[in-house]
This record gives sequence, C-alpha cells and structure tokens, in this order.
Amino acid sequence: MSSVGQTIADLRRTVAELHGELTRYGLVMWTAGNVSARVPGEDLMVIKPSGVSYDELTAATIVVTDLHGELVEGDMSPSSDTAAHGYVYRHMPEVGGVVHTHSPYATAWAARGEPIPCVLTMMADEFGGGIPVGPFAMIGDDSIGRGIVETLRDSRSPAVLMRNHGPFTVGPDARSAVKAAVMLEDVARTVHIAHQLGKPGDIDQDDVDRLHARYQNVYGQA
Amino acid sequence: MSSVGQTIADLRRTVAELHGELTRYGLVMWTAGNVSARVPGEDLMVIKPSGVSYDELTAATIVVTDLHGELVEGDMSPSSDTAAHGYVYRHMPEVGGVVHTHSPYATAWAARGEPIPCVLTMMADEFGGGIPVGPFAMIGDDSIGRGIVETLRDSRSPAVLMRNHGPFTVGPDARSAVKAAVMLEDVARTVHIAHQLGKPGDIDQDDVDRLHARYQNVYGQA
Amino acid sequence: MSSVGQTIADLRRTVAELHGELTRYGLVMWTAGNVSARVPGEDLMVIKPSGVSYDELTAATIVVTDLHGELVEGDMSPSSDTAAHGYVYRHMPEVGGVVHTHSPYATAWAARGEPIPCVLTMMADEFGGGIPVGPFAMIGDDSIGRGIVETLRDSRSPAVLMRNHGPFTVGPDARSAVKAAVMLEDVARTVHIAHQLGKPGDIDQDDVDRLHARYQNVYGQA
Amino acid sequence: MSSVGQTIADLRRTVAELHGELTRYGLVMWTAGNVSARVPGEDLMVIKPSGVSYDELTAATIVVTDLHGELVEGDMSPSSDTAAHGYVYRHMPEVGGVVHTHSPYATAWAARGEPIPCVLTMMADEFGGGIPVGPFAMIGDDSIGRGIVETLRDSRSPAVLMRNHGPFTVGPDARSAVKAAVMLEDVARTVHIAHQLGKPGDIDQDDVDRLHARYQNVYGQA
Repeated sequence: MSSVGQTIADLRRTVAELHGELTRYGLVMWTAGNVSARVPGEDLMVIKPSGVSYDELTAATIVVTDLHGELVEGDMSPSSDTAAHGYVYRHMPEVGGVVHTHSPYATAWAARGEPIPCVLTMMADEFGGGIPVGPFAMIGDDSIGRGIVETLRDSRSPAVLMRNHGPFTVGPDARSAVKAAVMLEDVARTVHIAHQLGKPGDIDQDDVDRLHARYQNVYGQA
Repeated sequence: MSSVGQTIADLRRTVAELHGELTRYGLVMWTAGNVSARVPGEDLMVIKPSGVSYDELTAATIVVTDLHGELVEGDMSPSSDTAAHGYVYRHMPEVGGVVHTHSPYATAWAARGEPIPCVLTMMADEFGGGIPVGPFAMIGDDSIGRGIVETLRDSRSPAVLMRNHGPFTVGPDARSAVKAAVMLEDVARTVHIAHQLGKPGDIDQDDVDRLHARYQNVYGQA
Repeated sequence: MSSVGQTIADLRRTVAELHGELTRYGLVMWTAGNVSARVPGEDLMVIKPSGVSYDELTAATIVVTDLHGELVEGDMSPSSDTAAHGYVYRHMPEVGGVVHTHSPYATAWAARGEPIPCVLTMMADEFGGGIPVGPFAMIGDDSIGRGIVETLRDSRSPAVLMRNHGPFTVGPDARSAVKAAVMLEDVARTVHIAHQLGKPGDIDQDDVDRLHARYQNVYGQA
Repeated sequence: MSSVGQTIADLRRTVAELHGELTRYGLVMWTAGNVSARVPGEDLMVIKPSGVSYDELTAATIVVTDLHGELVEGDMSPSSDTAAHGYVYRHMPEVGGVVHTHSPYATAWAARGEPIPCVLTMMADEFGGGIPVGPFAMIGDDSIGRGIVETLRDSRSPAVLMRNHGPFTVGPDARSAVKAAVMLEDVARTVHIAHQLGKPGDIDQDDVDRLHARYQNVYGQA
C-alpha cells in the first residue's frame, strides 16, 4: 500500500472511532452529526457516509472525497454536510479536522442566535473567550462553509454556533475537533444552567488572555 | 413456514429489537411505551405485550393482533394502546409503523398543549415544520386513534403531541417511526432549552419547505 | 431450610437486585437510597445495610430486622432509614415493599414542599392523582414513618414527598414500590419541565378517576 | 518493595480507579478533573497526569509528586492543578484526598458566585450546611490552593465552589473526597431544580446541626 493509502486507511479507522465519542457524550442522536479529517498534503478528506447508524460505522464505511465533496473512495454517499467540511479545508489550511453535531445546549444557544459568554476559566482555557454565532445558512451550496470560515476567522474559538442549526468545531486534527465539540457542549450546558437562576460574573479580558495562553502552552503532555 | 408467517416472524424480531432504541435514548421508563408494525398486505399488526419489562421483550413475547386489537398470535395480552395503533393503520394506509412514548420533553409540551415551533433546520428536515398538538382523549375507545389521525392528516409532521398524555409517531415502517420518536424528543428538548433563556428565531416558511424537500430526497443512501 | 428461611433468602436476593433499578434509572447516587420488603406473615423485613456501595450489594449483604429495626440476621448495620420502613409496615398492613430515594426532580418538589399536580394521564394511571407532600421530620425516631403513613392514608398515591428530604414509595411488594419510585421521578421531571415554560392543563377529576380505575384493572398481564 | 513503596503502589491503583467514579456520575468530560491522595506520613501525593484520557488512566500512568508539585515518580507531567492540591495538603494536615471537577450544576453555582443554601436533609448530613464560594483565582501560582484553604477553614463543608471555575472537595482519604464531589453535584442539581419553580424552604440551623452530628456518628458500618 502506498504511503498515502496507508494514511487514508489510518484516518478512516480514526474517524470511525471518533464518532464513538459523539455518542458517548450524548452529542448526537440516531445518524445526525459527522466527523471528518483532512488527508495531509492531499486535496482529500475522509468523512462519515450519509444517514448511516453509529452502530454500523466502521473504517470500511467511511468515505474519501475531494475538497469539493466528490466521492473518491468508498461505496456510500458522503455526509450531506460534506460541502461545508470541504469549504473549511479549502479556506483554512491550518484545520485538519471538522466536527458537526446538534448537541442540545449548544444548539439551543444557536437557535437564539446568542453567543456563549466567557464566564468559566475552562472556556478561557479551551476557547480563548466566548463562542461566536455564525449566520443562518441553507444546506446545499457554499453558504454553511462560508459562514463557518468567516465567523472563525475573527475569533480564537475553534467552535461556531450556526444560527438555527447547530455547532461546528475545528482543530489541527480530527481528535482536537471532537474534543472541542465535547467541551463546547459542556460549557454551553453549564453557562445555560448558570443563567437560569441569575447572571454569572464575567472574567476580565486580561485574565482570559492569560488563561488561554497558559493552557495552550502548558496543559497536557509535552 | 408460509411467506406471511416468515414476514410476521421477522417483524416480531424487528419490533422487539426496536424497543431497545427507546431505552437507549431514554424515551421510556419501566414498561411504558410501545412500538408496532403493520404486516404488509394483511389486516394485522405486531405489537408489544402490555406491562412487560424491556429486559424481557423478545420476538417470542411480541404479539400479533388484527387492526381492531384482537389477539391473533402470541401468549400475552397486547399493549393497552393497541386500539390506538390499530385505528392509525386502518385510516392511514401509508403508515407501516407506530410508536408511543412518554419521553419527558415531548410530553412536557403535550402537557401544556403547546405545539413545538420550527426553529431548527433539523426540524424542517425531519418534520417539515412544527410538531402539532392532538386533543385530550381517554384510553379505551377510538378517541386516541382518531385524535392522532385527524391531527397528522393536516400536517407534514410524522409526530403528534397528544394533550396531557405524550407523543405518537408514525412512519412507512417501524424503524422510521422509532427514528421520528428519537428525533422528536431531541428537538423537544433543544427547543425547550432555547426558550428557557429567551426566544429562538423563526425560520422562514420558504426555507422550511426547501430544507424539507431536500432532506426527503437527498439525505441518506440511495 | 425452613419455608420462612427460604422466603427470606428469596427476598434478600430480590431486594439486592431491585437496588440495581435505582441506579439504572439514576434515582440514587453513591450509597443513598434503600429498598425493603416485608417478610409475609412475619414481623420481619429485609433491607439494605447502611452506607454500602451499590456495586457491593448482594443477597449476602442485605440484612433482616424486626419491624422496630432490630437486627435479626446479617452481618451489617441496617439502613439509617430502617425505623421509617418499619413504622410503615407496622401501620400499613397492605404494604409489602418500601423504597426511599433522593431522586432529583421528586426531591426538588419536596424541597419546595409543593405537591405535584396531576396533569399527565400517566399520573392518573399510576398514582390516581397528584403526589402529596409529607411533613418535615427528623431522622432517628418515629417521625418520618408517622409522616409517611399519615400522608399516604389520605391519598391514592403510593408516593409521598417528605419535605426538604425526598420521596418514599410503597407497594404490595418491593418491585411495585420500586416501580412507583421510577415512575414518580419520571412524572416529577416531566411536570417540572412543563411548568418551566408555562402552565400545563389540568385533567378533570372524573377523567382521573376513570383512568386510574382502568389502569388498576386492565393494564399488564392477567 | 519497601512499605512506603507498597503504599504508593496501592494509592496509585486506588486513585486510578476512583477517576472511574467521576466519569460514572458524569462529573467530568474528556480529560478535565482530577483526584489526588496524600501518601500518609510522607510529603508526597499521587495525582492524575495532565491531559490524559480517562480510558488510559491506569496505576502506571498516575504520578507521584512532592507537596510543591515536583515530579518524584512516574513518566508523565502531573495535572495542571497539582499546585492547588499540594497547597491543600501542606495547610490542612487532616486532609488525605482532594478532588477537582467541572461538574455542571456545581460549576453553574460557582459561575454566579452563589453559595448553595442548605435546604435538603442530605446537605445537612453530608456537608453540615450550605456549600461556600471561594475567590476567583488564576491557575499557575498558590492562589487557587489558598482560596480553597481559606474558604474551607471557616466551614463544615468538605466542598468549595471556586468562582468562575468549579468545585474542589476534600476528605480524610481520596474516596471520601470523591464521595463529596458526587454528593455535591447531586445537591447542586436538586437545589437548582428546586429554585427554578420557586423557593425551597430552609431547614432550621438546630436541625442542620443535629442531622450533621448524627450522620457523622451513626451512618454506615462501624
């Protein structure tokens, strides 16, 4: 197998397994939601097939498309969100993974079109501030992808709440984008709960900046 | 075994297994909730027995009745909601599966008698608009079935919120009706959460129509 | 083994297993919550030992006490709620099982001292109406048991919300009392959710009576 | 192996296993949250490594540090909260275990900087009253540890809500601190739910004192 062939085989297995994190943390129901990964150095991505149950997702069912969503490898139709993933990869070269869910608390903020304010140190750490809202956009052309890219370009956040739709998250690889999706739902829920009985206190912008810088540089294993 | 006999045996197994999706997604507690499937081409349906624990549901415990709820095959009494399922099959020939749950968020909207507004693209996709409310109806005669049919006939939604009672969903087969029950609870919860802190934005009716048409024709595998 | 000895052995196993339903439905955390069963025809009950983890609960760890809570059989101290269970058995001869939890939604109603109104057909079916509130009572003497008995005597409900404390449920046997605890939390949650965005509609008392009578007589297997 | 070596080996296994309780009860997402244990009689503690997934936590991955957070044994970098744990051990000799989570309901109270009032008998039992709020403090120096210690010194509670951050709990050993974290989230949730629809009733301070004294002395096995 060529080196690219091996990389694709590995990414198909990784992406299949990462969908298990979406179900574990309750971010998706039935077949909604999808994870993709860019094939490094190629104009290709691997992504979930459309409408397939999470129980049936294996490396073999994950498909490969070009960055315009044309099927390159695999037996099934790619996710109906493939165009949005592809647009992100074409316009954000630093992104190696994209995740889309309808996780309930993040989607509720998206339904109101309301950004999530940065009131938790964990948000400063992970997102570098609040979570921004992207435009309402129809499925089927470039408009979702364009909305994601334009919103994330102005933000340190790897997560965007697409209005009346749900969250998209990005990362240097698929695992990072899944982590951002998990943490996003967690903070969306906690900040929602906090607001139900009053108003959480803000964190000074200086402190947000310091927390974010520290987390990016110090957290985890070298 | 005759061809009908084989079909019934298959449906009993399928319906037994589909109840596992109700517990997986937390739509039912203890023995409440039930799934049925029409036997194609026959005036028969397969349905959960009454008051049986989900742990004990197997193909063998699922019963077969005619479309008036009279037991045809099986050792146990059919679900106490059998009359409602049968009424739906008699009056909606396109329906092949019916599901009833008391899933908490959908039932809360039902308790207030309040339809769920279409504020999520996923609702437009899956339900074609908001989720309608059916009348208050007593168990034990045709009134629940009649309420379901009269409400769904005026709606694109495969789900109805029966007032002070809970949701019923339908589909071309039992699996589709279970999917609708799962997605219903998901959107009932997300829209509830959205309303707790403000008012979600509406989606234009034109966009709802386009999303619904696209999803029905494009989503999933050919 | 004597016949009573066999009955006690069976009940210890049943009660150990029934605690698994409390954890399955999220009614208890850590070691809180307990199930007991009356030994029919004897002034004895079997009950959970105090402060033991649910993972370690086996038939062997369940203890036997008299109806004043004195240890008769077993190696461990009985639940700190044993006096309350015994009081119920001494004063309600029709009761064969008692369950106590701190399930969150039922306990929230109890914290406000607010009865749960009957706004769901499932409440009419299972509880025959709303869920009443019992008095604030200290642990350590007869006051909890007395509060339970005095409240349930005036109600069709097998469940009582002890003020600032949590729910107790009863039934003809331990399994029925566990079912009531599970259904109670379900309706406590759904009615809570319904109230968060408005006011659920009432069910006429006549309809409540008819639903309750039907459910007691028709539901389940003969 | 020396006696201290055996103790450390045992504590590493215990602490690895106790992290499973954090995931079981939904107190942590992804890699957030950590448990530590003091090594009795030594100026050492065992603690979770930084940014490691709960699935990969084994006795072998748990690290040993001194009470200033310097790595003594193990291959990985210690938790980014190690300085806070160490400060607690240095200043509270009675503490043998420390737990930090971002459990959603407790963190929501922390985000508002609002103490949880004692309105449940379970809170009186376990916490001896309400749950206090600690100051906003930055990660990276002594300020989190100092905030924990100064808040808990004035309280019977083994739990503190660090403002805009999340809860820390302590106990005579790591298991007790984990129990406190589990019970804290349970009461944070129940009291939150109670407040959503009104105002829970207070418990008289005398009753709180009596309940707490009884629980500390009578509950559980001798």
